[in-house]
Amino acid sequence: MPKRLHVNLFEMNCVSHIMHGMWVHPDNNRHRFNDLDFWIETAQLAEHGGFDAVFLADVIGTYDRFRDGPDVSLREAMQIPNNDPLLLVPAMAAATSHLGFGVTFSTTYEPPFAFARRMSTLDHLTKGRIGWNIVTSYLPNAARNFGHSDEVPHDHRYEIADEYLDVLYKLWEGSWDDDAVVQDRERRIYTDPSKVRYIDHVGEHYRVAGPHLSQPSRQRTPLLYQASGSPAGLEFAARHAEVLFIGGLTQEAVRRNIAATRARLVAHGRPPDAVRFVVMAGIVTGRTDNEVADKLRSYRALVSAEGALAHSLSAVDLPRFDPALTIGALIDRGEPKAETLLRRFRREQTVADALRQMAGLHEDRFFVAGTPDVVCDAIEIWLDQDGIDGINLRQYLSFETARDFVELVVPELRRRGRLAEPDRSAAPLTLRERTFGEGQARLPPGHFGARYRDPANLRTPAERLRFPQDDGRSAA
Amino acid sequence: MPKRLHVNLFEMNCVSHIMHGMWVHPDNNRHRFNDLDFWIETAQLAEHGGFDAVFLADVIGTYDRFRDGPDVSLREAMQIPNNDPLLLVPAMAAATSHLGFGVTFSTTYEPPFAFARRMSTLDHLTKGRIGWNIVTSYLPNAARNFGHSDEVPHDHRYEIADEYLDVLYKLWEGSWDDDAVVQDRERRIYTDPSKVRYIDHVGEHYRVAGPHLSQPSRQRTPLLYQASGSPAGLEFAARHAEVLFIGGLTQEAVRRNIAATRARLVAHGRPPDAVRFVVMAGIVTGRTDNEVADKLRSYRALVSAEGALAHSLSAVDLPRFDPALTIGALIDRGEPKAETLLRRFRREQTVADALRQMAGLHEDRFFVAGTPDVVCDAIEIWLDQDGIDGINLRQYLSFETARDFVELVVPELRRRGRLAEPDRSAAPLTLRERTFGEGQARLPPGHFGARYRDPANLRTPAERLRFPQDDGRSAA
Repeated sequence: MPKRLHVNLFEMNCVSHIMHGMWVHPDNNRHRFNDLDFWIETAQLAEHGGFDAVFLADVIGTYDRFRDGPDVSLREAMQIPNNDPLLLVPAMAAATSHLGFGVTFSTTYEPPFAFARRMSTLDHLTKGRIGWNIVTSYLPNAARNFGHSDEVPHDHRYEIADEYLDVLYKLWEGSWDDDAVVQDRERRIYTDPSKVRYIDHVGEHYRVAGPHLSQPSRQRTPLLYQASGSPAGLEFAARHAEVLFIGGLTQEAVRRNIAATRARLVAHGRPPDAVRFVVMAGIVTGRTDNEVADKLRSYRALVSAEGALAHSLSAVDLPRFDPALTIGALIDRGEPKAETLLRRFRREQTVADALRQMAGLHEDRFFVAGTPDVVCDAIEIWLDQDGIDGINLRQYLSFETARDFVELVVPELRRRGRLAEPDRSAAPLTLRERTFGEGQARLPPGHFGARYRDPANLRTPAERLRFPQDDGRSAA
Repeated sequence: MPKRLHVNLFEMNCVSHIMHGMWVHPDNNRHRFNDLDFWIETAQLAEHGGFDAVFLADVIGTYDRFRDGPDVSLREAMQIPNNDPLLLVPAMAAATSHLGFGVTFSTTYEPPFAFARRMSTLDHLTKGRIGWNIVTSYLPNAARNFGHSDEVPHDHRYEIADEYLDVLYKLWEGSWDDDAVVQDRERRIYTDPSKVRYIDHVGEHYRVAGPHLSQPSRQRTPLLYQASGSPAGLEFAARHAEVLFIGGLTQEAVRRNIAATRARLVAHGRPPDAVRFVVMAGIVTGRTDNEVADKLRSYRALVSAEGALAHSLSAVDLPRFDPALTIGALIDRGEPKAETLLRRFRREQTVADALRQMAGLHEDRFFVAGTPDVVCDAIEIWLDQDGIDGINLRQYLSFETARDFVELVVPELRRRGRLAEPDRSAAPLTLRERTFGEGQARLPPGHFGARYRDPANLRTPAERLRFPQDDGRSAA
């Protein structure tokens, strides 16, 4: 059987998530993001089209570094306004029965006990269709919204996150036994008290007594997503993640990235196939080449370089320089912070070229524009040769991007055996089962979090992860 | 026109909220609280019956003082398991269009910035139908779930809460102007940056930069509910609350309570009618006296005194004493903590009588059992003579209690002009308008929170409330 594709619709509870400038397109519905109807329509389209999940990004602050303020972000609706992602799930869950939901939440600023209950609540309300994208917060403004004067240093964030996960596992996996809830009306016993326990976590960053407030849900621990772009992030992922967002500019880089991760999984005592690898993908399709070309033209005409610069927290106001100058020239003449441009551009690129790059459609390794056959050929190469397992579909227009995928690409993927045929009569699977196979609703026994199913381990301090020093930055 | 009744359905995202022991009744659906269907059915019933709102209580810990542990609470499902209340709202909102939602959230343990965004998100998703029950946390176990060794002292909790509200008002009322969002596709301006600002709050307990992440919603600040049972609580309510939960054992006590509150409102520069007064009410009704008597009998047979003792955080295990002994005798012979029983019982009451009281249906001033005429007569007295404005309807059985009210009491209340006739064709009102009148979607100009509409006030430290010393306890 050919390898199957996992597909998530990449979303965010805001106007402009990644493709900045597109909200002004007359067919774009992003301005409706404050309305329940927009999200119910999104969820129904995704479920109808056989998507595995709607995946919601999040940040809890404003990108206000570019031009020393939030003005560009506000004008472009670049992730501000931006509402809470978890609160979209119950309404989308009520309107669907098979679709999963990935939500992003940062371990940096909010206490774990309340978050544990929120995720258990969502796992109950969705009947096991919830996943969590673990992020640590890197936005300077987010830090200032939570009493800090600047961002928490990168590796320290991962140390905090590792203990945060420990608290969550204890609550989700260790506080209630599977048979704790008996609902015995005759004997008037809802829960057998001998099967529920305090966790009494006392660590470096958290002290949490428990017991967990929610009874066991179908998955207990939500499916764990993570993006790892740094050595510390990789170490963390090798212990915790079940689905990993990766990237790579070439097929070789992607394969190397995947192989390196599998090696770290093994070092952490997990099977090399314990993780699914997902990339953000851009797909522009249509019934004819002309239709595709028209779409590309209309999208490219709208993309905003300024929005992208604000999103990148750029410290340099590129548009104010002579377009003919090179990046190297800016550095050589001592423009403030110009050397930071080398993170993204080459010395010999001109300002004009750099701006064109920022105003692009992210036409990288996982971008394809073409008729459904062309798109599916590319996807098959990504699956079989790059070695990925799935995509987060980036949206240009809501709902055009998702609808094109559902109407044009999905039938062809099904014909090629790359997507399962929908079986609406089947009992809905949990998100973890949908990802790893029926019957695998819970964390596998070899996963670090599963250790707390043995109450004895609640009393034994876990060995903390040790993180290599690096200056990378995690993605949210 | 006769005074109209406000009606909330009193709920909690758990099995046993107030009437402990009732979940075992064969017609009770409380065991379905983990399911979305249960809540959608609840919301639709409430909307159909003309309820103003579903009002959700909450605690973020376990009642584990009685018999030195959580065993009774677990066995009785006494507020454990207990899921997050906010996450129910989006699904109930999608299934209704006029019903309001009151959610309980404590100011004691979680950071204000994230909560401000959650409530704005809910105000957007419900189109202005959200209210917030402001509580401070008193449960010792809740403290231990958030890194504290014991509960935060009562008055200190209100000091924290007062600054917490200040942060929220700045975000909700002061950070975005009404005309900030322009959605100008031609000029590519979603938000006019000159109309959004940082709040830069620096106080004793919080430092929050802003800007708020959500654009202005219909109500901005949700309708503010509070229960005040202490001098500090009353002072806080006089500044902040718009709907106040009160009690009182007699008509005189209720009237006194209301009058005292109105005096404090005036002292805080607010109109004496700036607050609506709501009581928790118990109503058992039926088509005939026999039907009512049958219901009373079946409810009384199930109520659990142990559940009520666990809920009261009782330090004394009353059921283990000779039922013929008096409370006074227990105190006189030096039973540990027996004197705490005087908070709830009289010296001359026997143990048997005290236990009967704990196993009762709360048959106090705002309890009535009878045919719809009898019930409506009582409600009219509560409205016209006690001086209350509304009730939180306590539930014995889900859905019997609400259905009885909707089918039997509501038509009679409408006949008497005490409930508005439903007008499904009318544009839905916000919850604040439903409470105070059409056109009043926002905090009134004289409310403390409205001061931050003037950006100058964002830069001026607010005078903090001063709280009288007392040893009372707030209700959650």
